[in-house]
Amino acid sequence: MSQFDASPAAILARLIRCPSVTPIEGGALGELEEMLIPLGFRVERPVFSDTNTPDVENLLAFSGDKGPHLAFAGHTDVVPAGPDSDWQHPPFAAVIENGELFGRGAVDMKGGIACFVAALARIQAREGRLPGRISLIVTGDEEGPSINGTEKLLRFAAGKGLSFDACLVGEPTNPDALGDMIKIGRRGSVSGTVTVEGRQGHVAYPHLAENPVRGLATLLDGLLARPLDAGNERFQATNLEVTMLDAGGNTSFNVIPARAAASFNVRFNDEWTPESLMAEIVARLDAAATDLRLRPGRSEPIRYRLAWRERPSDVFLTRNDALIGVLAAAVETVTGRRPALSTSGGTSDARFIKDYCPVVEFGLVGRTMHMANERVALSDLETLTEIYDLFITRWFAAHA
Amino acid sequence: MSQFDASPAAILARLIRCPSVTPIEGGALGELEEMLIPLGFRVERPVFSDTNTPDVENLLAFSGDKGPHLAFAGHTDVVPAGPDSDWQHPPFAAVIENGELFGRGAVDMKGGIACFVAALARIQAREGRLPGRISLIVTGDEEGPSINGTEKLLRFAAGKGLSFDACLVGEPTNPDALGDMIKIGRRGSVSGTVTVEGRQGHVAYPHLAENPVRGLATLLDGLLARPLDAGNERFQATNLEVTMLDAGGNTSFNVIPARAAASFNVRFNDEWTPESLMAEIVARLDAAATDLRLRPGRSEPIRYRLAWRERPSDVFLTRNDALIGVLAAAVETVTGRRPALSTSGGTSDARFIKDYCPVVEFGLVGRTMHMANERVALSDLETLTEIYDLFITRWFAAHA
Repeated sequence: MSQFDASPAAILARLIRCPSVTPIEGGALGELEEMLIPLGFRVERPVFSDTNTPDVENLLAFSGDKGPHLAFAGHTDVVPAGPDSDWQHPPFAAVIENGELFGRGAVDMKGGIACFVAALARIQAREGRLPGRISLIVTGDEEGPSINGTEKLLRFAAGKGLSFDACLVGEPTNPDALGDMIKIGRRGSVSGTVTVEGRQGHVAYPHLAENPVRGLATLLDGLLARPLDAGNERFQATNLEVTMLDAGGNTSFNVIPARAAASFNVRFNDEWTPESLMAEIVARLDAAATDLRLRPGRSEPIRYRLAWRERPSDVFLTRNDALIGVLAAAVETVTGRRPALSTSGGTSDARFIKDYCPVVEFGLVGRTMHMANERVALSDLETLTEIYDLFITRWFAAHA
Repeated sequence: MSQFDASPAAILARLIRCPSVTPIEGGALGELEEMLIPLGFRVERPVFSDTNTPDVENLLAFSGDKGPHLAFAGHTDVVPAGPDSDWQHPPFAAVIENGELFGRGAVDMKGGIACFVAALARIQAREGRLPGRISLIVTGDEEGPSINGTEKLLRFAAGKGLSFDACLVGEPTNPDALGDMIKIGRRGSVSGTVTVEGRQGHVAYPHLAENPVRGLATLLDGLLARPLDAGNERFQATNLEVTMLDAGGNTSFNVIPARAAASFNVRFNDEWTPESLMAEIVARLDAAATDLRLRPGRSEPIRYRLAWRERPSDVFLTRNDALIGVLAAAVETVTGRRPALSTSGGTSDARFIKDYCPVVEFGLVGRTMHMANERVALSDLETLTEIYDLFITRWFAAHA
């Protein structure tokens, strides 16, 4: 028997009461360590560092020494809560009202961790031991820059000789109700900033200046003129969004800005690699910059710079039918609903894990994530714990 | 005889050594008062206030009690100097090197004031008295918001029963050399901000959000597509410049911004009133917002807001041939060059004065204004003093 209240709500309340706003550990990994040791896990708490980013604490827990190896991945860091006054209950108080547990991280994703730990406790209580080998890969750097988190933790685990046969990520994956959706892949992500250089000057003397805004508008037209693709049966269409605009930091109505910049992000499907997509964007910008038909009266190409943001995320698709099938069946057995197998939505740390083993994602309902009054139904915590319990049990049975 | 060194360089050095960075008086109006009293002026130093703007000191000086009334208008406030390290000589030290006097305000426009005071001192020394009635309207709020400056000072003067027959503004008007240009009018100026409302969201879920940037680009295309007019023999073409861009203050590559805004300024000629121009801009925006041919696949007009900046400046053209003729002839007599009569360039406080009396502008060479190493040739100070002397003498002779 475990030596703590192993109901998922009790575990989640302990985690929410740790104000682990990224990148602060806030006691959350410590709570987790205290729960995992009685379940028989060995726990490491490596701190990773980098230039220009804060140091971040992480947790690697592993049990068993032979047999198939299942990993669970997640994060205890949370996004900021915003003003307390926006919340019905304080964001780190874990108050239960009308069958819902309120708190920052309730669904993203202390709730997923709580259900996994609760499932392990039930299996141990029922079977007397945990099956095979199980690892928990838990970072404090998922909501932040993701520099000192899962990617380094995976290398750390590999350095200790741990290798995984499959991994379940506990991020919230269900849009509306438990059982909606399993994520079996993610689109890639590339970001960049295009800057048009002009010449600063007073608005009353435009002939002495050169306004870069018109050139930037032309380049954006070129970028946005036609879709990048139409999507396919595996992925949504590739999509480009302009996210930031800046006219050289100018704050005066009387000044023609020195430069104008637009930043953009592209979520791309498996019809592209980061490299082929970046080449297409450059080609579109170059075409718009040099097509003088677009700019009557102008005889020179638009002078622009394109800066890519570091570290594009590659697209991936998990093709391990055994892993996907066992998880989908567990979801259907418990909820009575057949989950969609989806590649929609944002990136997650699964983009790092996919280089080590097949990875799928299933967790709580994401509707309130990152919002004030983030909360989870107690019944959802119970249901997800049952799903995780069944998934773990069946996955090890299938790999026995 | 005046009781101070009345050479224009000595007067200018005294003024430059007062660090009167707008809206700070910095001692400059005090120096001026000390020079004008020995010349027989009565001096008032009203302080004007308003909500949301700093209090500003101003100076009204007037001499004589009958005869034609000539006003001179200017400002002692200066724009910030920027880092001292950008300057060959400290910006408030009034150092002379190679026949040039360095300092913030040397040409814009403590230099113009210095030449006018020097001209008055010469006339008084030569004639034993100043002719008719002369007023100096000097503000400390020209480089700032112009809320607590010339406009209020003119009302203050009117309240004291002063009314002017003509006014000379001493702003720098010559692009390259003394004698280039008299300003006989100014274009109007209207500023606004157009904001497209979208719906904020995560870039990975564009169907749950609405990116306002594309709509903004369409509206800007509509604004910029064709010239507002071609100009005429009196004025340059009306010109619109986009000066600021903002994507809802967004600072994340992962967020579709809630709104996108562009600010613009229009300098317009006498083919427009502020009202007719604003109506044309609204018409262009409405046309672009509702022309669905511009936006394939969209069925709704672009929702936008247009906020006009307070207080458009109206266009004006001075048609007082006597005033313009006397000034142009004085310039030509002293410099041997016939000045262009221009309406180009930015606005000045002449836009307020034109409601009270005919107004023209002539001053130093503006090439270094608002820059590091702002400076004036000592020979230009002498030449401008001679021009002002001759202009004052001839103007009163013509109105005797």
